[in-house]
Formats: sequence, C-alpha cells, structure tokens
Amino acid sequence: MEVKNKSLEELEDISQKIRDRIIDVVSRKGGHFSSTLGAVELTLGMHYVFDAYKDPFIFDVSHQCYPHKLLTGRWEEFETIRQFEGLSGFTKPKESPADYFVAGHSSTSISLAVGAAKSIQLKKEDRTPVVMIGDGSMTAGMVYEALNELGDLKLPVVIILNDNEMSIAKPIGAISKYLSKLLAGKYYQGFKGKVDNFIKKNMPEGTTYIAKRMEEAMKLITPGILFEEMGIDYIGPIDGHNLEEVIDTLQIAKAMKKPVIVHARTVKGKGYKVAEGQHEHWHGVGPFNVEDGAFVKKEAPKAATAVFADALVNLACKHENVVGITAAMPSGTGINKLMDKFPDRFWDVAIAEQHAVTSMAAMAKEGFKPFVTIYSTFLQRGFDQIIHDVCLMGLPVVFAIDRAGIVGNDGETHQGTFDISYLRFIPNMVLFAPRDNETLHQAIEFSYTLDKPCAIRYPRGAFIETNYKSETFELGKAQLLKEGKSNKLFIGYGAAVGRACKTEALHEEDIAVLDLRFVKPLDKETLKDLACKYDDWYVFSDSQKQGGVGSAILEFLNEEKVCVNLTSFEYEDDFINHGDTKKVEESLGLFPEQLVKKVK
Amino acid sequence: MEVKNKSLEELEDISQKIRDRIIDVVSRKGGHFSSTLGAVELTLGMHYVFDAYKDPFIFDVSHQCYPHKLLTGRWEEFETIRQFEGLSGFTKPKESPADYFVAGHSSTSISLAVGAAKSIQLKKEDRTPVVMIGDGSMTAGMVYEALNELGDLKLPVVIILNDNEMSIAKPIGAISKYLSKLLAGKYYQGFKGKVDNFIKKNMPEGTTYIAKRMEEAMKLITPGILFEEMGIDYIGPIDGHNLEEVIDTLQIAKAMKKPVIVHARTVKGKGYKVAEGQHEHWHGVGPFNVEDGAFVKKEAPKAATAVFADALVNLACKHENVVGITAAMPSGTGINKLMDKFPDRFWDVAIAEQHAVTSMAAMAKEGFKPFVTIYSTFLQRGFDQIIHDVCLMGLPVVFAIDRAGIVGNDGETHQGTFDISYLRFIPNMVLFAPRDNETLHQAIEFSYTLDKPCAIRYPRGAFIETNYKSETFELGKAQLLKEGKSNKLFIGYGAAVGRACKTEALHEEDIAVLDLRFVKPLDKETLKDLACKYDDWYVFSDSQKQGGVGSAILEFLNEEKVCVNLTSFEYEDDFINHGDTKKVEESLGLFPEQLVKKVK
Repeated sequence: MEVKNKSLEELEDISQKIRDRIIDVVSRKGGHFSSTLGAVELTLGMHYVFDAYKDPFIFDVSHQCYPHKLLTGRWEEFETIRQFEGLSGFTKPKESPADYFVAGHSSTSISLAVGAAKSIQLKKEDRTPVVMIGDGSMTAGMVYEALNELGDLKLPVVIILNDNEMSIAKPIGAISKYLSKLLAGKYYQGFKGKVDNFIKKNMPEGTTYIAKRMEEAMKLITPGILFEEMGIDYIGPIDGHNLEEVIDTLQIAKAMKKPVIVHARTVKGKGYKVAEGQHEHWHGVGPFNVEDGAFVKKEAPKAATAVFADALVNLACKHENVVGITAAMPSGTGINKLMDKFPDRFWDVAIAEQHAVTSMAAMAKEGFKPFVTIYSTFLQRGFDQIIHDVCLMGLPVVFAIDRAGIVGNDGETHQGTFDISYLRFIPNMVLFAPRDNETLHQAIEFSYTLDKPCAIRYPRGAFIETNYKSETFELGKAQLLKEGKSNKLFIGYGAAVGRACKTEALHEEDIAVLDLRFVKPLDKETLKDLACKYDDWYVFSDSQKQGGVGSAILEFLNEEKVCVNLTSFEYEDDFINHGDTKKVEESLGLFPEQLVKKVK
Repeated sequence: MEVKNKSLEELEDISQKIRDRIIDVVSRKGGHFSSTLGAVELTLGMHYVFDAYKDPFIFDVSHQCYPHKLLTGRWEEFETIRQFEGLSGFTKPKESPADYFVAGHSSTSISLAVGAAKSIQLKKEDRTPVVMIGDGSMTAGMVYEALNELGDLKLPVVIILNDNEMSIAKPIGAISKYLSKLLAGKYYQGFKGKVDNFIKKNMPEGTTYIAKRMEEAMKLITPGILFEEMGIDYIGPIDGHNLEEVIDTLQIAKAMKKPVIVHARTVKGKGYKVAEGQHEHWHGVGPFNVEDGAFVKKEAPKAATAVFADALVNLACKHENVVGITAAMPSGTGINKLMDKFPDRFWDVAIAEQHAVTSMAAMAKEGFKPFVTIYSTFLQRGFDQIIHDVCLMGLPVVFAIDRAGIVGNDGETHQGTFDISYLRFIPNMVLFAPRDNETLHQAIEFSYTLDKPCAIRYPRGAFIETNYKSETFELGKAQLLKEGKSNKLFIGYGAAVGRACKTEALHEEDIAVLDLRFVKPLDKETLKDLACKYDDWYVFSDSQKQGGVGSAILEFLNEEKVCVNLTSFEYEDDFINHGDTKKVEESLGLFPEQLVKKVK
C-alpha cells in the first residue's frame, strides 16, 4: 500500500483500515495486539518519510510490526499471521525485502542501526537507519552499549522511542520513571507550535544550515538530558497518534543527519477501546470477541507455568529465604503470583537478564535461595553470568526455565531448544526436569535442598500427563517407569517423557520406559543396569540433538565402554519455524504416531 | 594489616608500603599493575570507613584488588600472586572471607551490590555494599541494567567510580567523554572546602538529619546529571589519591543510606613514575626492571594473536569489505594493528560484547565481512546475539576467538575452554581451527570465502609447531597428517594438534594423526574411512569434554553406527585454576609425556 504523497486525510483513512484489519484478524487468529495497534501512526510516519526498501527499518522485538507488514505487500497474507507456514509474527527478511532483520529478542535494534549506519557511511550511500523501539526495550544493557557507541560516532540514525509505558508488564525501574517525568513535564505544550513555525520559516533554505538551526531550536525545548548526555539528540515528547506531528518530526529528525531520539507517546491498544492502555493483558492474545473483548475460552489443562507458580508459592510460604526474579515476564512466568504474595522477596527487573542472574547470585551468597525464572530463549542473555557469577561460585541459584522446547506461534526467535546444550557443560551445574504436574511440584521442593546451582526446565502449555506414580527426587536418580519384554528402552527427559509413554502405548511390543530426570549428573548406575537388559535405546527430549540429552548419554556410554544402539528423537541442527506447536511437531515427525513407525 | 583508627600519617605510610610491595612483587613475578597501583588510597579508604569482613567489598573485574589482598592477611603470600597454587590475581572467597565474590569479567559489581543490598534489607542487618568499579567497566550493558534497578529501589550502596580514563585501552565512547567532561569542569575546586566545612558543622548532630542536609549540600555541587537522572546520587569528582578526601567522602556516602556514586579521579600506575598514566602497556605485565621499567625479555615464538593480526591485515588489504571489531582488547586481540591501518573499518566498542556482535551482524547484512575478535571467555557475553542476530540470519560473520583453551595466570574466570560447547549446537554455525601459524593464515583466508557464520579459535601464546605441510582449507575437510601402522588414531583439533603430534612422536608405535580442522561440519567421509583402518581413537583438543570435540565425534559415530573405541583428552567437568599454563596442563595430565602413558 503506497503512502508517499498521500494527503493527511488519506493517511488517516489508511491508518483506520490498518487498525480494522489488525482487529479483525487478531480477534480471529490471535497474535500480538496492543503494541502493534499503538504503533500504527508511527509506522505510517516511517513509511511516509523514509523508504522501507532502501532505508533500514529496524523494529525492536518487532512484535509491533503488523502495520509495517500490511503496508508492504502482505495485506491478504496477513490472514495467516503466526500460523504454521503463514506469516511470521515478527519481521523476517525471507518474507519481504522490506523486513531488514529478524527480531524477537528485545533491544537489538540500536546495535543493528549502528552497524547499518557504519555500512552506509563506508558505502557512501544516502540511506538512514530508522529504529522503532518501545520503552520496555530500553531497559536492556545492549541498548546502552549501542547508544554509547552511537553517541560517540554521531552517525545518522533516527530512533523512534515508542513510549507506551512499558511494553509488556508494568513500568519498572529508573528509566521508566525518567520517561514518565519527561511526559509529565511542561515541555510538550509548546512543542508543536514551535516545530511548525520553525519548519515554515526554514525549510526553503539549505539543508546543512537548517539542520544546524533545528538543532539549536530543539535544544531549547529538549528535556531529554539523559540521552543528550550520552551524545544523542532528543526530540519530544510528541503525540505518537497525531500523524501530522509524527511526520513533521520524523522529517526534522531525518534532516538532522545525526543520531536523534524521537520520543513519541502512544497508547497501547489504540483504536480498540477495551484494550487501550492495558499493559500485559492485551499484549499477546488468543482469539476474542470484537464486540466485548471477551476471550474465546478453550478447555485446556493447567499450564506448567501455573503449576510452577503454585509450587513456588508453597515453597516460599514454608521458607522465608526463598526469593526470586523475573525479567519483564511476571505473568508469563507466573512470578506475578509471588510478587503479589511476597512483594519484598520477588522482583521484576525488566528486560535485564544479565543483571537478574548476577544479582541473584549475590542473594544466594547471602544465604537466600533465589529462583531465577526466565524463558529458555531469554536466559541465553544471562549465559556468561550463569557461568561466571553463579557456577564458578557454586551458588545454589535455581534456574526455573519456562518455555523449554517448542513454543509455537512465536517461532524461531523464541524456541526453547538450546538450554540443555548451553548449560550441560558448565561445571557445578545440576540439570533436571519434571515430567508432569506432580513431579514439577516435587522438583521445586527438591531444588530447595540442593546446595548447588541447578536448572529445571518445563514446557509452554501443559504436560502430557503420565500415569505413573512419582518417586521423590534424589540427586542424579532416574525413575524407571516400567520394565519391558522387548530389548528396547525409551528414555524420556522432562515433558517428553509423556511422549515416550504415548509412543510406547502405541507400539506393539512391551517396552521399558525410563524417566531420566537428571541429565546432569546422569544416573550412571541405573543406565548401566538397563544396558544389560535392553540394548536398543531411544531418547525423547525437547532439545537440540547436538550437545543434548542423547549426547550426554553417548558421552557416558563411551566413558563406561557400554555398548548399546542409541537413537535420539531430539531436534535436528536447524532453527524451528513458528506455528501451532502440534503442527510444528508433526512437521518434525515427533508425534507418537510418527515416532512409533521410526522405532519399528 | 589494621587501618582503623590510624592517623592520616600512619595511613600514608601504609599506602607507601603497599605500593612498594606491589612494585617489588609484580616486577619480579608479573601481574596486574597499573590499575592496582592506582587504587591504593581508594582501597585504604574503603577499609578505613567500612569493614571487609562485614560489608560486602565488591571489586569490579577485581584486577585492582592487590592492595585489598595485602590489607587482609595476605602480605607474605602475595609473593605467590597468580602463580600456580598461589594467590589468585582476582578476589576469591576460597582465599579469604574478606573476598566477597569471584570476579574476572567486568561490570558484574553493581548487580552483585544490588543482590547484597536486597539481602541486607531482608535480613535487617547494618551492612553496606561497597563497590569499586573502573570507568572502563562502565560501558557494559550490565552496569546500566543494575543501575536502573538500584536507582529505582534506592537501596544503600556506595559505588566508587575509579576513573583512571579507561581501564585497559584508550577511552572509548560517549560515557568516557561524559566522564572527562565532569573532570574538566569547575566543580572540583570548591568541593573539598565545602565538604570539610560541612562535616565540621554537622557531624555532631543526628545521622538522619545529617544525611538529609548532606544530600542537599551535595546537590549544589553535583555535575553527575546522567547518574542523577537514573536515580543515583553523585559526589565528585574527588582526588582518589588524597587519602583525607577519600575517607571524608566515603564517610559521607556511607551516611547517606542510599545509592551513591563517588567519582574519584586516579592515575594508573600511581607511585611508579614509568607507568603513571599509561593505558594498556602497564595494565598486566610480565617481570620488569624496577629501575628503568624495562621488561625482562623472554625468547618466545610468535604468538597466535600476532599471526592472526598479520593475516587479517593481509586480508583487509585485499578486500575492502573486511571490517572488524574488538571489545576493549585492541592489543590483546591484535586489532590495534588493523585500527591503525584501517581506522574507518575497525572499531573498539569498549566492553560491550553484545553490541559488538549485533552491530557486526548488520554490517554482514550490508555486504561487509565482519571479524568479531573477542576472547573465548568474553564472547560468552555475546552468546544470545550470536544465536539470535547472526546465526538465525545465517550471516557471514567471522568470530575470531582468541585465548581459546587454558589462558594461564588469569585462571578460572578467563579460561577459554567452553567455546566449542557453546557454539557447536547453534544452527548455521561453522567451527574450525588452525593448528599452527601457517594454517591460521589459511583459516583467515578461507573464512572470507564462507557465506555463513563461522568461528575460528586459537590459543593464548604460540602454537606448538607441527612439521606437516598444510593443505588448503575446504569446508568440512580434515587433513590426515600421517597414516600409522598401529590400530590407533590421534585426532587433534586446533592448537592441540601439536600436542597430538608430540605424543605420537613419544609413542613407540607408529600412530596415524588426523588434523580434524572442522568440528562442525565434521569430515564424516574421512572419519568413516579411518574407522575401517583404526579402531582406537584419541581426541586432543583444548576444550571442555562435555559437548566438545569428542562429543561431536561420538554423535557422528552413533548416527552412522560406526563402532570405535574413543578416548577424549579434553578437560574434565571442572573450572580450571590459574597458574603458568605448562604447570596447569601438567596438573591435568595433559603433557605429551603424560598422555603417552595414558594411551599405553
């Protein structure tokens, strides 16, 4: 859809059409909602002032990219958003040349813009990187690292700070307070008039001169001291839903030819009354009724996240030294329950995984039992801190890893498939996993007793329930769920134990099933015993094959010179696409019905 | 050594003794030098005002902790600093209860202080976390994440910002400029007098009242807007070598009972004229002559770093699109040569590994060939960015991983033993390694031709030269260095190929030696062929056993149902201590003379 040279009325008409389309499709299919509705005018402004096929358009996290997708040839296809084999919910260069980069993790945008700006300078091209970043993404350290270099090099980059008062959860931290202060200030009132006047007076003249004058004019009305101190110019706050103001400001920012932050205030869910200004509730949604905003209820078994939260509430009631942290995912991780009940002992530190991990290391040193509750994919951000601050000190921090395995519609940027591979080789680390709700409770209880770092993983959504009574957890002890008459052994880890059980039930032979429980340390004794009885092993785990559970078992078998035939049903060496989890698993051949054929 | 209740003269005497001891020992043994000399008075001040056995003393990176070690019962033992089985060059709780945390990676201190402060509040104790952090460490994103929460929670933490104009390399980035601006300002002049007056007038009164008044007084003379905007109080700049001023200021800061940054200006190498104010050259040193500062020269073969730099200069001369980055280690990585020769194409982004990786991903997207040159241990900080921004996009970024394997005296915080394990499972990644100087040149040339992300690792110091002619690199192709008459096969990877060759030479049998070259993708064909001839395999690689080279080969053998007997001489599942590399390797049984016995 072309926006260049359109009149303001036409643009406003387009913005309404975009909103209607988003509300229509997302209400039927689900998807990111309030952030993307809030970014309609800003996105239109970007497309009016810049060129998505030339200027790098960099959407931070990119869950706000739906208007951009609609404007760049994906109006019809938008129907398939986040569906299996449909459009991704994030920007994706394979989908369109208008998508500059993949982004699903937050706070990468300014670094990308710096790289793009350096490239443009070297190639002597006339293009400007434009970033759209939410205030929620401003808390991550990466942003600061990038601003630091950008403020030093002074390369032309336009950063639209889309301030909807924290992207996902409630506002957290000093930066958020700082931004609010700016918004509450008196600066805004005079802004619009001054800019208008200024443009009318100066636009006919030469660009350099204009840029210089503009800068001076801006300084007068600028409250963005923090950014200015870092060497980045600041304009704002402006009304991010006022198209005229957005376009005028972006034109000024573009003409400045240096790094500039355009601070735009927006309302989450803008244009859909029920969702307006709501924080977490309307961030990512399932299908809902457009009339009243009622979510279409699906009968679903209790999600692992909720079970985890209950178990942790239990534990925290019993033990005063239980504390915990989440990085901007309070309800996603269930830590909101804990924050409500124990506001002094559980914290949301915003998108700041590095700090989350290390600050909890210190609490462990002080005698507390910290639970660091972060999604598998986001914990990658705290990787060095896990090694250097937790494991090297041997501190009893519990990593409660939610969204382990395939996560469904968010897709390749969010898959929780790597954690076993990236944690298993770290000295002092204990890795274990529950197979169902009951064992998740037990795992949390057990983790409290451990005097070492440990990580527990559990899936997005519900476990496949297994019908075996659980034994209490013991360090490095597996549980043999059933013996078998064949020479086969199914070894399950975590949520995949259920898949192993289902596959066994479908198989005509009577097959032994082991719940491995600990991938580190392995239950060597049990494995050795089982090798005497069964010599055809199959590994079920929602993890990367390389360095994963099968790999751990192979290392053990080799060390002990035990010879069995091992097949791993872990993920192959590739990124896994988005879509309904069941469809994705089917495409990977991981349904019990498919696995049973492979076993035969 | 007790410092409490000592007079100023006595303290100055102690500071002289500490300096003498550091200069004496480091000139004979080597060690961190200029940063630790610059921190003598600040450390004395900390010990005078706080209690290291009660208050958490948190030294960022902690290479400046020598005065602290000398003050806490390690005067004699200091003779063994960084030596095998001697004192660590960093803080280490196992060494002394006065050492709160292990630290060797930068910028963890404020997060640790936040965790400590939360703990202290919950335990209702009267202790104050005190941080000493260099300006160089202020560039990493972690610091910003931590300040953001600290400024929000307002817990009492005293942060001594030891500003010696960038810890290791030259000043970089906006933050550095910002700090310089503070120092250059007019604020300092009036400071001392005001503080003195203020204390004289107010000290007899109640503490809360004093704190309040102090705060107000401070505001008047405070130039630290950036920190203030984040909710952290700021005092300074003060002269970090003026003991009286240091002590007075720390007392004020302690009494404030909220987060405060004390900005102290210090001179690197203070007290040893030759080193004063020098940046990188005197940061970490080998033995030198105290009279003239001449380093004791050792005959040493050319280090891999220097070979890498030469190879990259070559490449960059040939190809205009070769660019590169280092994160505060210009001379450590050899990138200084490139920055000198191609100042527009090579950058030092300061301690900012996350930003380094992602910004280079964008340059790859723009058609450049970026070399991200970071030590193995520090690249852990960019782990998520490698996955999410480089590999998911399949971009041809080259990770040139220096200090792979055992690094010697820096020890457990710095060992480069994990990179194979943490990179091997990432889809799209290619991993290979040169075995000597010639193949390092070839590896760099080859990396240029690859249209995918790849990582090349090479050791600290020099390769063990091998006497085999190198074949040109080909994706996924190993090089068989020699056939053998026995059933044994030695498989070497990277710098450990030399060790494999040496071990072979010591063994009475004639043993085949393979330079694996690629751990991903493996040369499956060659390995299969070799399995027909040799069925007793030994893996030599300077990497963690779990998830490492042997593990990769085991996965392949299992997949292909090839049966051989495999022994890996990689590192066991433990952190590896500091000391001379040879001594450390001997302690791990990794000398060819030791390995040959194991093979027999």
